[in-house]
Amino acid sequence: MASVTGLDGIVAAETELSLVDGKNGVLVYRGYEAKELALHNSFEEVAYLLWHGELPSTEALNASRKHWAEQRRLPAELKAVLNLLPLESDVMSVLRTATSVLGTISHQEAEWPLDFERILANTLMLPTIIAYHYRRSQGLTPIEPDPQLDHVANYLYMLTGTVPQQIHVKVLTAYLILAMEHGMNASTFAGRVVLSTQSDLASALCASIGAMKGPLHGGAPSEVLHMLDAIGNKENAESWLREELKAGRKLMGFGHRIYKTNDPRAEALRHLMTELAAEDPWFDLAIHVEKVAVELLNEYKPGRKLYVNVEFYAAAVMRAIALPTSLFTPSFTLSRMVGWTAHLLEQTSCNRIFRPQSVYIGALPVSLRNRS
Amino acid sequence: MASVTGLDGIVAAETELSLVDGKNGVLVYRGYEAKELALHNSFEEVAYLLWHGELPSTEALNASRKHWAEQRRLPAELKAVLNLLPLESDVMSVLRTATSVLGTISHQEAEWPLDFERILANTLMLPTIIAYHYRRSQGLTPIEPDPQLDHVANYLYMLTGTVPQQIHVKVLTAYLILAMEHGMNASTFAGRVVLSTQSDLASALCASIGAMKGPLHGGAPSEVLHMLDAIGNKENAESWLREELKAGRKLMGFGHRIYKTNDPRAEALRHLMTELAAEDPWFDLAIHVEKVAVELLNEYKPGRKLYVNVEFYAAAVMRAIALPTSLFTPSFTLSRMVGWTAHLLEQTSCNRIFRPQSVYIGALPVSLRNRS
Repeated sequence: MASVTGLDGIVAAETELSLVDGKNGVLVYRGYEAKELALHNSFEEVAYLLWHGELPSTEALNASRKHWAEQRRLPAELKAVLNLLPLESDVMSVLRTATSVLGTISHQEAEWPLDFERILANTLMLPTIIAYHYRRSQGLTPIEPDPQLDHVANYLYMLTGTVPQQIHVKVLTAYLILAMEHGMNASTFAGRVVLSTQSDLASALCASIGAMKGPLHGGAPSEVLHMLDAIGNKENAESWLREELKAGRKLMGFGHRIYKTNDPRAEALRHLMTELAAEDPWFDLAIHVEKVAVELLNEYKPGRKLYVNVEFYAAAVMRAIALPTSLFTPSFTLSRMVGWTAHLLEQTSCNRIFRPQSVYIGALPVSLRNRS
Repeated sequence: MASVTGLDGIVAAETELSLVDGKNGVLVYRGYEAKELALHNSFEEVAYLLWHGELPSTEALNASRKHWAEQRRLPAELKAVLNLLPLESDVMSVLRTATSVLGTISHQEAEWPLDFERILANTLMLPTIIAYHYRRSQGLTPIEPDPQLDHVANYLYMLTGTVPQQIHVKVLTAYLILAMEHGMNASTFAGRVVLSTQSDLASALCASIGAMKGPLHGGAPSEVLHMLDAIGNKENAESWLREELKAGRKLMGFGHRIYKTNDPRAEALRHLMTELAAEDPWFDLAIHVEKVAVELLNEYKPGRKLYVNVEFYAAAVMRAIALPTSLFTPSFTLSRMVGWTAHLLEQTSCNRIFRPQSVYIGALPVSLRNRS
């Protein structure tokens, strides 16, 4: 029996949550194209869709908005632990620790199957935890969530202390919706493996956060950001990109393991930035750099069909909202939390432990060497 | 592409750590039969074997003993967090939280590949964390580790405050050695999935602890314990067991998913208890109950070939050392930590992310219904 490296091509579960169709460049969330949702819906609506299987009615949305806003505040017991963590701690380690503490102080330990209210609370507190630790690490006083703001605007508000511009909320919302769910990636899978033992929510989420923390998992918009910074303005784009390609260096933000055509998430963000190009020079620059880069990639690497990926436009979003690079993966995490927890809800109904095999390639004791 | 429920029969990795041969009733750790190691070696020696691939020389053992004893003390920053957790917290949630905090305060965040000294420290602190929280939860003052005692004796000492009897150390050591490693079980697998993203030690261990916490993973010696308690003495065994079987109830501690013959771990414990039967009536009772139960199972369920499993004798160990049931899974965990971390060391050299697939079984958007 040969081992399947990384379980490539092995189907670990059926899901009603998302279809990742790399050949056709399509990402579907529960019957809707993710790029349409990103352009037309709120974070709350798409989270509701992934959790409940349908977009909320206006009444359901209004009811949940109020309920959600109340759940964003951190319990005092959690703040007490956060206050003990080193200021220089990586935010992902803080999220993992906080999630574990939440499991303990809210007694998730013996809850089976999962309690949806707990899922909601854990998801809604995540931005508050990020902002709390971020401001602590900067020597700033943490800011309480503002119940008047929606989930994304409130996140930016808690980081900066000022109500963000609508255009920033709009592009960040689109990015976060596009990052919510993407099939059986390593972090989603890790959470499902842990939950398959009938463990609890906190345990599964610690596994997912831990997997997302690894550099092979989370994307690398920060490397694209360095590129956009280095290019600086549209006039420099062609000569800068040509130098990189001539020197045999890789252009960050192009090519994707799954999408062999346009990444639908990049398409949605490009569409939005095209509309808003006049309002932010970074959007205008990003669109221009993509266009030139695709032309030059065809010239220098003909036949490779390298298309822009979501990290490219994610970098322009991060730059426009001036998000520090230490918060890139945590921001991705607060969004993917929705996908993870929707998968955990699916996993509870499978009720089958994940237990593959290993093959022993070590020595045999003398007593066994003559057996087959 | 059909999904493989629970990844049954799929080989996820090659390993030099253990061979679980259910057909022949053999468990091998790196070329040695686990049952021999359990009878003749110390916890320290077998941990060294699993980590380093060979049993330690006397010099290496003496050197590591001293070094190990120093690593058992908890950092003040960790104690400060443990003091904030609710007294009634499940011990596994406390272990998960403490492991996450250790990752943060010792800055494991950006360490790649894994630092063995960190693995050692995390493993050695685990019994101290269990004892710390246990004594807190009982309203007792935590006890500092005693560097004069070996790993297992020190664990019992930190729980009770008295140096344990040699016979108790002996049987618990045997059980913990037998529980150290067992191929690609769910907790080991969860840790390897998280680490495969090049995440850190704390993240991988939180996933493993979280998976171990689930009732479908950890064994259930507490149910066997109820049985031994109900039987009480040898004279009652046959009539009690016969009643259970007549009523169609399952006998706990018999039958195993993998071992279709004698579980080698049960054999090792039975062997040890036979030697020590005169010293503890529970050992004598357990041996007698197994004998009668196997006879009666053959009578009531002929052809089923139900053999005793490790949980059965584990229960007798737990009873003899008077370990509270809340500490059964945590004690299993402090032992399996060695297997987990040995697997993580193997995983670092694979350097391939675990990323299976999912199959979408939800609705398609109208725009896509006519494709494919």
